[in-house]
Amino acid sequence: MAKKRETQPQLQEISKLPVPDVDSLDEDIQKYIQVCDEKLGMVPNVIRATALRQESLRTFNSKFKQLMLSDDSGLTHLEREMIAVVVSSHNRCVYCIVSHGQAVRELSGDPVFGDILITNYRDLNLSDRHRAMLDFAWKMTATPWLIGDADRQALCDAGFGHADVFDIADTAAFFNYTNRMASSLGMAPNEDYFALNRLPGPRRAAKDAAE
Amino acid sequence: MAKKRETQPQLQEISKLPVPDVDSLDEDIQKYIQVCDEKLGMVPNVIRATALRQESLRTFNSKFKQLMLSDDSGLTHLEREMIAVVVSSHNRCVYCIVSHGQAVRELSGDPVFGDILITNYRDLNLSDRHRAMLDFAWKMTATPWLIGDADRQALCDAGFGHADVFDIADTAAFFNYTNRMASSLGMAPNEDYFALNRLPGPRRAAKDAAE
Amino acid sequence: MAKKRETQPQLQEISKLPVPDVDSLDEDIQKYIQVCDEKLGMVPNVIRATALRQESLRTFNSKFKQLMLSDDSGLTHLEREMIAVVVSSHNRCVYCIVSHGQAVRELSGDPVFGDILITNYRDLNLSDRHRAMLDFAWKMTATPWLIGDADRQALCDAGFGHADVFDIADTAAFFNYTNRMASSLGMAPNEDYFALNRLPGPRRAAKDAAE
Amino acid sequence: MAKKRETQPQLQEISKLPVPDVDSLDEDIQKYIQVCDEKLGMVPNVIRATALRQESLRTFNSKFKQLMLSDDSGLTHLEREMIAVVVSSHNRCVYCIVSHGQAVRELSGDPVFGDILITNYRDLNLSDRHRAMLDFAWKMTATPWLIGDADRQALCDAGFGHADVFDIADTAAFFNYTNRMASSLGMAPNEDYFALNRLPGPRRAAKDAAE
Amino acid sequence: MAKKRETQPQLQEISKLPVPDVDSLDEDIQKYIQVCDEKLGMVPNVIRATALRQESLRTFNSKFKQLMLSDDSGLTHLEREMIAVVVSSHNRCVYCIVSHGQAVRELSGDPVFGDILITNYRDLNLSDRHRAMLDFAWKMTATPWLIGDADRQALCDAGFGHADVFDIADTAAFFNYTNRMASSLGMAPNEDYFALNRLPGPRRAAKDAAE
Amino acid sequence: MAKKRETQPQLQEISKLPVPDVDSLDEDIQKYIQVCDEKLGMVPNVIRATALRQESLRTFNSKFKQLMLSDDSGLTHLEREMIAVVVSSHNRCVYCIVSHGQAVRELSGDPVFGDILITNYRDLNLSDRHRAMLDFAWKMTATPWLIGDADRQALCDAGFGHADVFDIADTAAFFNYTNRMASSLGMAPNEDYFALNRLPGPRRAAKDAAE
Repeated sequence: MAKKRETQPQLQEISKLPVPDVDSLDEDIQKYIQVCDEKLGMVPNVIRATALRQESLRTFNSKFKQLMLSDDSGLTHLEREMIAVVVSSHNRCVYCIVSHGQAVRELSGDPVFGDILITNYRDLNLSDRHRAMLDFAWKMTATPWLIGDADRQALCDAGFGHADVFDIADTAAFFNYTNRMASSLGMAPNEDYFALNRLPGPRRAAKDAAE
Repeated sequence: MAKKRETQPQLQEISKLPVPDVDSLDEDIQKYIQVCDEKLGMVPNVIRATALRQESLRTFNSKFKQLMLSDDSGLTHLEREMIAVVVSSHNRCVYCIVSHGQAVRELSGDPVFGDILITNYRDLNLSDRHRAMLDFAWKMTATPWLIGDADRQALCDAGFGHADVFDIADTAAFFNYTNRMASSLGMAPNEDYFALNRLPGPRRAAKDAAE
Repeated sequence: MAKKRETQPQLQEISKLPVPDVDSLDEDIQKYIQVCDEKLGMVPNVIRATALRQESLRTFNSKFKQLMLSDDSGLTHLEREMIAVVVSSHNRCVYCIVSHGQAVRELSGDPVFGDILITNYRDLNLSDRHRAMLDFAWKMTATPWLIGDADRQALCDAGFGHADVFDIADTAAFFNYTNRMASSLGMAPNEDYFALNRLPGPRRAAKDAAE
Repeated sequence: MAKKRETQPQLQEISKLPVPDVDSLDEDIQKYIQVCDEKLGMVPNVIRATALRQESLRTFNSKFKQLMLSDDSGLTHLEREMIAVVVSSHNRCVYCIVSHGQAVRELSGDPVFGDILITNYRDLNLSDRHRAMLDFAWKMTATPWLIGDADRQALCDAGFGHADVFDIADTAAFFNYTNRMASSLGMAPNEDYFALNRLPGPRRAAKDAAE
Repeated sequence: MAKKRETQPQLQEISKLPVPDVDSLDEDIQKYIQVCDEKLGMVPNVIRATALRQESLRTFNSKFKQLMLSDDSGLTHLEREMIAVVVSSHNRCVYCIVSHGQAVRELSGDPVFGDILITNYRDLNLSDRHRAMLDFAWKMTATPWLIGDADRQALCDAGFGHADVFDIADTAAFFNYTNRMASSLGMAPNEDYFALNRLPGPRRAAKDAAE
Repeated sequence: MAKKRETQPQLQEISKLPVPDVDSLDEDIQKYIQVCDEKLGMVPNVIRATALRQESLRTFNSKFKQLMLSDDSGLTHLEREMIAVVVSSHNRCVYCIVSHGQAVRELSGDPVFGDILITNYRDLNLSDRHRAMLDFAWKMTATPWLIGDADRQALCDAGFGHADVFDIADTAAFFNYTNRMASSLGMAPNEDYFALNRLPGPRRAAKDAAE
């Protein structure tokens, strides 16, 4: 007998504000969306939602590309995604935790690492470098008015150079932007993010399968 | 070329306090552990960690069974797990979010529902009943001193009876206990929880596979 | 002339949820209530209120007995009650402050100690052991997600063993349960607690009496 | 066999700053101290502690007298003491809770009322007038920057006139001063306050006595 | 073409409670108001607003004079005004920030110093003495229940004597009073405060003028 | 006799991270800096500080221009600056309060309005439209995880269209970025901002001058 479903369907809307038809958008944006779909196998909902104001989407894309995709940084791509997740964890932002949590699972190759990070980075077994980096990102997010020389020095003591301190600040600050856009517009994450880069089935699943 | 691993291994320790060998435990506890392993395909780390004080493990088990496994409640099993997750989300408790998040994925049959719940239940598409229940659990957790008649009335208005109000309170209060045990002892969740009840691979995975 | 009473009577209700007649309860619960009355000279309202769900009362009683009444702990009974009061002070829980505040007055033989403890333990003249213990209990209560190795180490540095650290955590976590039950159900403390173990009358009372 | 005392003596110091000998003080202050002792049967420690800066003691006394002892107010003396206790409860000020808690017990003739008030006024059975008054005092204390027209209107709706609103504000604001003086100087309350106006012994005490 | 004014006029009311006509006040208060006007070139609105309860105004004036105008203190007048501003900054009190911010600009002769102080004293280039003093004032304001021996010692280590510690506490505590009076009554600051002691026009102004 | 200066000089450093010489920068950035200087009569320190990472400066400039300088928005320029100030006020960001506070004084033509806004927008005499807009910006900043349908609806009820809601969100989110960059890098505002658009001298200044 099929159990009656207790919960209601989720992810019905991309955004709580109107989402323009792709056809109605400027050509460069349409092109951009097409490239996303081809490269990622999906169009991240943040693109569709932000297209309500195309000029804002353009500046968002530039900033995102400069910060998260560039190779010109002393921070690895994984480190930048770790900062994204920790800021989003503080701000309890569903969209960014789901999407950047996936990125951390993928880049680290460690889904356990990614899933602990979204809840409490202090529970991870972190290098001193990563702990210092994430403590800075958390404090910047929670109480930016308390950041001072001692906090910047702690990053230098952990081996970061001045350009790295800038990039940590830039990344953490940027996700304080994106979290608030996602929450204010009520963006829902794409379903694909939830499934990607999970652990292979555990012992129990094997057992279930055998029955 | 294999990428150098950037992160350190996780989940190395069951608890930051000593974990007794199973052989050294009382017979009833050994038996209990064996049953867990057979029924769940694993021994939840909370059992191994709490066995440092066996009498405490016994009372924990009784309370857990009464609250979460009993059929004598106006709350469904899923509803009780939802409360567990929302309380644990407030308290940023890795162990309980990982283990009860898995339970919500399993009982709801909706991994998306489970993964949004662990971050921000307000972003879910909830029935009035579930929203009232989770608002009460959150407030009880965050500011129990502000709970008053209006909060209890809101539950009744959403259709809960007096015994149900009791059970919501009991469940939310209990996870305020377990969260603090897990955080204070530094318990790590079993790896299996991370993998179970995930969405089947997405469009993108299919595409990756085809290449 | 008698002054008109400015305030309304208090303690009219045991709980804001229905309180079952003792006669309607299971025999073992009725027996338990009778024993309480004989041993304590009263039936704590928490027993009457929790009896709305008798199975919950049974697990509560087991846990309470294991934690607070057992002699098998490196913590004295007074120390366990001190933790109870400090957690309840953070959570502004009337029921638990009144009842466990009385226990502290009784066990310490120092009503002044008890009355300062309910407001701000930092104002007491405490041993290093007690200060470390109560700092841990407060932090576990306020921000359990920030508890880490340094906090556990501080307990060890103050002379606590691993089993003691467990018991401190267990006790502090448990009162985070009971406080939330008391606040959620709206339990009122028994009048007797307010009167017991107070200081004998002061100089002023003596003076009043002499007039 | 006498139990070994587990706790250390309290109330050893009037203040953590130096307390001048009474003989060294100006004549008017010496006189004031003598009158306190005769009228109250004690010299409140706040007087002795504040005498470190005699001019500050004089302005404190004037303000205290105007606010708390005057008959020229639409607030009763009990109401003013209730505000004092609720503000001090928010600020967890031992000195003021102990001393003004005693005043509430005395003026209300209801020690139960006084003891609940020091922990959580929301748990009392309050008139609408008193609830509105204490909600305003709490908000003024916790988040004065959020006080607005709606808060003032709520007091008027509960029957307070403009001069009464002023007096509520004046009293709540003043105890935000005294609480901080007591905490900053580390003042200890006089022992007498702890003992006065307690409930007569309960049923249990009677039973103990009979044995 | 004149731009349409987008905002509404401010500072229309001295207070949200009734403000008595000067003629209706007691003679000493009328005299006091006249002296203010002559000496300051204005009557601070706090005087007019507080005159609703003349006895309260008298005790306020005495306290203010003792604390802020006296030469009998180890704190300079500027230091006392700095404490006033930092406390008011925490409490986001418009009246006190505007009026005492002006005093800091005047006494320091440095409008830049004054304007940074009202937002975040941690961003100033402060002597150790001033940093310790303002850290103490901030903590007393935000979490007075956490002030302890270490905080008092930090002041002594920065060179303050016991009477100075008292005066820092007295000043910070007093502005916790005045901030709450201003916010509760809804006092508006006099327009003059906004204009006084500003920097002379910058390079840009000079350029504008030249065009 | 000249009074000894009590405070130390401020604004000595543009940033706590290294600030590149203008000559060392890419040509387009050098050109941009030159244009700023010509148009504004100064080079805002944020430009000099952010030039440590030129690609980040370029994306910042694009975003700033799109958001704050464009005429394509239902929000006036003053409204966008008001949001900037209120977000910065929550985050106690010296750089942004000083620079955008100046913009508000200039665009509103009302220095009093600007100076109240930086401390507590709730004390202003605001239109319903502006109050709704600023309440949304504050909540987005303080607790973005609590933003929901009711908050978006409140904006619509105040007359904002969907594109306007987007722009309010975009602006408030962006200053949560800039505030954190300014605080993390320790940027100091240019002196000119402090002086511009102040009220002409008050009655008192006139009086001083006449003496």
